[in-house]
Amino acid sequence: MDMPWIYTFFDLLGTLAFALSGAIAARQRGLDLFGIVTVAFCVACGGGIVRDVCLGAVPAAGLVDVRYLAIAVGASLLTMLAFATVQRMSQPVQFFDALGLGFFAVAGAHKAWLYSGNPQLAVMMGILSAVGGGVIRDILLNRTPQILEKEVYASAALLAALIQVGGDWAGVRAAGWSALAMLAGVGLRLLALRFKWNLPRFTGTPQ
Amino acid sequence: MDMPWIYTFFDLLGTLAFALSGAIAARQRGLDLFGIVTVAFCVACGGGIVRDVCLGAVPAAGLVDVRYLAIAVGASLLTMLAFATVQRMSQPVQFFDALGLGFFAVAGAHKAWLYSGNPQLAVMMGILSAVGGGVIRDILLNRTPQILEKEVYASAALLAALIQVGGDWAGVRAAGWSALAMLAGVGLRLLALRFKWNLPRFTGTPQ
Amino acid sequence: MDMPWIYTFFDLLGTLAFALSGAIAARQRGLDLFGIVTVAFCVACGGGIVRDVCLGAVPAAGLVDVRYLAIAVGASLLTMLAFATVQRMSQPVQFFDALGLGFFAVAGAHKAWLYSGNPQLAVMMGILSAVGGGVIRDILLNRTPQILEKEVYASAALLAALIQVGGDWAGVRAAGWSALAMLAGVGLRLLALRFKWNLPRFTGTPQ
Repeated sequence: MDMPWIYTFFDLLGTLAFALSGAIAARQRGLDLFGIVTVAFCVACGGGIVRDVCLGAVPAAGLVDVRYLAIAVGASLLTMLAFATVQRMSQPVQFFDALGLGFFAVAGAHKAWLYSGNPQLAVMMGILSAVGGGVIRDILLNRTPQILEKEVYASAALLAALIQVGGDWAGVRAAGWSALAMLAGVGLRLLALRFKWNLPRFTGTPQ
Repeated sequence: MDMPWIYTFFDLLGTLAFALSGAIAARQRGLDLFGIVTVAFCVACGGGIVRDVCLGAVPAAGLVDVRYLAIAVGASLLTMLAFATVQRMSQPVQFFDALGLGFFAVAGAHKAWLYSGNPQLAVMMGILSAVGGGVIRDILLNRTPQILEKEVYASAALLAALIQVGGDWAGVRAAGWSALAMLAGVGLRLLALRFKWNLPRFTGTPQ
Repeated sequence: MDMPWIYTFFDLLGTLAFALSGAIAARQRGLDLFGIVTVAFCVACGGGIVRDVCLGAVPAAGLVDVRYLAIAVGASLLTMLAFATVQRMSQPVQFFDALGLGFFAVAGAHKAWLYSGNPQLAVMMGILSAVGGGVIRDILLNRTPQILEKEVYASAALLAALIQVGGDWAGVRAAGWSALAMLAGVGLRLLALRFKWNLPRFTGTPQ
């Protein structure tokens, strides 16, 4: 966390990937321009905003830093005006999304640790930062949140947050530790994508 | 904002219109009495409550001022006991709803400005105040929020909030400026209703 | 509220019943392990977390007390590994759920009263504590919240919260009063289950 430009770079890259995934999903559902911007912004910033509300860190950074809003608007315009290009980018978007997942889990967990010093809260806030935006997207698009149904996604955030908070708790201050935590989460996510790993589940019984 | 009784008048009128729209939608879905009151209250006060939570202005005015709850209960009883009358009022309700939209956008933006002095936050909180209740209604009724799909609705709130915050930022203190901001939002909404204006959208591609 | 171990006993029993009801519903929808734990935790703690955010009592107890998370994980594992057993427990779960409903309504209302001294807020926060988790469960599972549609459920929470806040307001400090409030809510809920009571509703008119 001591390398500001690297931190900013991953933060904005992850925000862009999350915003693009939101804008694509919103366009596929036929929402209008305002709807697409709203969903893109919620995916990119929603998890962090809910985390900050839970921590009492209001107003949330996602609501006052103009770069996040600008990224959401930019991703929406790109998705509306150059959808063919955006679709060709779906592979890179999935890769950047994994980067964002790992980064947000680590940064969210570390922020919650600094606010509270409570390891359980820090891990939970790390996961919330990483996956909360996607849950809000799915609620707005009126479908069961995808992260509750399939793929090792939240688990990758959990791994990254656990490593980060373990370091915070043990007093590790090296930026390399955060990089390791992020890499572990990103790596698990990419491996799960590559090999189609899923968590155990059971077929539903009739209600 | 310096004319207290006018302010209170629009606030309660907008609350009533929002509560009626929530109660009507809830009754159409066959909810029970508690469900209708809940949805009516959420439409009328939900946007303001979420705004206050985001600003750290807790407990929210919508939760402690008995007039809002009384209006939600009254609108619900009216909708349950005199549905034919309420249906005849659908034209006026749409008109009052536009008034409420403009008023809540201006009042919400101004409150957020006073709390934070941040223009971006103030505009976003103005929109949230005006449309948040409707989003909560649609989430509770398990459908995609209507404001994300159709009609110039959130855009009217955006216009009103932009004008209000522009004035706040430039140091305009005249109540007339807030009235102008509200009129611009209400006017845009009524014109959009009259001429069926919509924001640009694109047909969804198969998922 | 002056009998700590009784308080803790009902708190954890209610949390377990709520977590089991969430885990069962999530398994029936075919969610994966992370999804089941998430829904179980949201049902058990979601209402209290939203209440604490509304009161400004952050970070919420539900997020920092490891017992609640442990109960949610335990209930989820039980539901995944021994579903036949859990199904045989559906009658007791409904009974414990009624206990949890009454307890959370009384404890939530009392906490909000201590924070604010506002009777309306306290009653509303009592209801929110008791039913908020179930509403979040139904939103995540993409269905209209059941408490808005059927059965005397929220009404039982309302009764318990009203009695508790009436006592708080009148200065009653005896733990027996809280027990009475809880019993009234639990009793109304069990009677409604036994005799299939519902609140008045109307068939929906075509939209």
